[in-house]
Amino acid sequence: MAKAPEEEHPMKAFGWAARDTSGVLSPFKFSRRVTKDEDVSFKILYCGICHSDLHSAKNEWGNSTYPLLPGHEVVGVVTEVGSKVQKYKVGDRVGVGGMVGACHTCESCENNLENYCPKVILTYNAVDHDGTKTYGGYSDHMVANERYIVRIPDNLPLDAAAPLLCAGITTYSPLRYFGLDKPGTKVGVVGLGGLGHVAVKFAKAFGAMVTVISTSPSKKQEAIEALGADSFLLSSNQDEMQAAMGTLDGIIDTVSAVHALEPLLFLLKSHGKIIMVGAPEKPLELPVFPLIIGRKMVAGSGGGGMKETQEMIDFAGKHNITPNIEVIPIDYVNTAMERLAKADVKYRFVLDIGNTLKAA
Amino acid sequence: MAKAPEEEHPMKAFGWAARDTSGVLSPFKFSRRVTKDEDVSFKILYCGICHSDLHSAKNEWGNSTYPLLPGHEVVGVVTEVGSKVQKYKVGDRVGVGGMVGACHTCESCENNLENYCPKVILTYNAVDHDGTKTYGGYSDHMVANERYIVRIPDNLPLDAAAPLLCAGITTYSPLRYFGLDKPGTKVGVVGLGGLGHVAVKFAKAFGAMVTVISTSPSKKQEAIEALGADSFLLSSNQDEMQAAMGTLDGIIDTVSAVHALEPLLFLLKSHGKIIMVGAPEKPLELPVFPLIIGRKMVAGSGGGGMKETQEMIDFAGKHNITPNIEVIPIDYVNTAMERLAKADVKYRFVLDIGNTLKAA
Repeated sequence: MAKAPEEEHPMKAFGWAARDTSGVLSPFKFSRRVTKDEDVSFKILYCGICHSDLHSAKNEWGNSTYPLLPGHEVVGVVTEVGSKVQKYKVGDRVGVGGMVGACHTCESCENNLENYCPKVILTYNAVDHDGTKTYGGYSDHMVANERYIVRIPDNLPLDAAAPLLCAGITTYSPLRYFGLDKPGTKVGVVGLGGLGHVAVKFAKAFGAMVTVISTSPSKKQEAIEALGADSFLLSSNQDEMQAAMGTLDGIIDTVSAVHALEPLLFLLKSHGKIIMVGAPEKPLELPVFPLIIGRKMVAGSGGGGMKETQEMIDFAGKHNITPNIEVIPIDYVNTAMERLAKADVKYRFVLDIGNTLKAA
Repeated sequence: MAKAPEEEHPMKAFGWAARDTSGVLSPFKFSRRVTKDEDVSFKILYCGICHSDLHSAKNEWGNSTYPLLPGHEVVGVVTEVGSKVQKYKVGDRVGVGGMVGACHTCESCENNLENYCPKVILTYNAVDHDGTKTYGGYSDHMVANERYIVRIPDNLPLDAAAPLLCAGITTYSPLRYFGLDKPGTKVGVVGLGGLGHVAVKFAKAFGAMVTVISTSPSKKQEAIEALGADSFLLSSNQDEMQAAMGTLDGIIDTVSAVHALEPLLFLLKSHGKIIMVGAPEKPLELPVFPLIIGRKMVAGSGGGGMKETQEMIDFAGKHNITPNIEVIPIDYVNTAMERLAKADVKYRFVLDIGNTLKAA
């Protein structure tokens, strides 16, 4: 018989978990493994709230098992390192993003793309190498193989750095891979939430001309004045959309609700690309003619490998890029989830784990 | 008032055209321009029947104007060249594919991608530079700017070479552009019709391992024995499809009926690509998760530029690649269209214009 979460491993651990599809989080006692040779353990200080956490807590993607302890934008300070760990020492500022393991032998792993390994182990709601369940960062401490640990640059505040570990790499990686990182490139960003606002910052840092595309006129001022976008398109304004036809090299589409691709395809130049980083539950309608006329493409991108994640956060450090955050105590988490569902946050909630998570 | 088609230009011309959405073709008198300085005129000997011709004749894409004279796989022998023509002389074996003009100043044109020029002039059902309508190759002769003329290699029979000008370039171009032209690459071809069977031949000539994916079990033997495919997947066979998951680098999807993309996405390796070359009238359902998991993409590709079209047909000459054809007389064209609608052809009808098209 499987052991209770509290007794699976030697180290006591504590966090907040959802128990059923209500998605409501509540205090949860569990356990974590001891620090193995290649492991780094760290005390969690902050954890970002990603929209995936909400989808997972409510089982909206249909693959959740309970108790489910979310959180994959986890930062803190190293408390212990295994005997073979080379890159980290006690006291280092580190983080963990969306994954904590992979096979390390497949083509993806060999190319530093652990995120596309078919056996990738996600940071929560997954099964680890030892057969036990993974629990995320809404908790007091974490243990992970050194390969999955990222060093946080000294100049970045830990709280604001946390969302880079998911929102950051999720937008940085496709900008790089799909060649949207060149000065003068015309980049569109659809949706100005947790992912979208970071996409704008990275694209601007690459020297791109950035157009924010949104259904909400209220985002115009924010996009241009607060985030530095070069222009704004209201997707419901036919005249604006018409005038912008054929002007973009690529679009980072962060919207995880079902939405129309056709108007976005028309915004692209020949050979333009839409890259989906949000994951709508239901299929989108893909008109094929607009793809064929101009050899356009619709691609997906999910996170990034560990090497690129370190590169991303070093780039963020160099360019002083941090997400805009609202720091909240752990007992506000359920209210935050409700607000997140209504997109009522600018732009990322970050849980202050270090100061507010206390075992009952 | 617009002149009648017969009186627009000095040169009498004759062909078969559709007059309404019935799509039924009947004899049609019209005219063509004189051979200008940069023009090549040629007597048409053969013209392939592309599925687009059927869609257009019946206005299934909603943009047809009548009379509509189809045909964009046109071959024949040069009868006259303009004073500035450099590459061709009377008696040369030549052809015209899907287009007869473009702007020659845009980025696409400058990159020899006239097919993606926003002002591309299609071979039929389009408006030419002089404001008159373009008529296709189901006719006795053709005049086009030298840039749009392709030389047919000496070793290729003219009848079988004709479909290369559309079906050939439409499949060759995406195999090249999307990197599916490397020895050992695993390429899927969906649909084994006019486009699909040529895709198999080109992919094999590039050294790829080719899997044909079809809804029809009867295609298995043809695919493997007659066309040289390495394997065959019956898309309705769950076990076969499951066993082939994650095995393909790319898929050339030639199906112009609405069909499911999801099972095809699952056949792809990480970073795999589906390239749509058929154009379903209605949008396809695009599930986003399978795109994100593995950074996959769905792209479109439409024809190829003139430089690449010449390269393609030279490659076909070198490797002795020709489509499998059924040569028919012009007065069989309406029956052929009916058979084409039922996919009852292996694999391309070619009209024997030279021997069977006679002015009434």
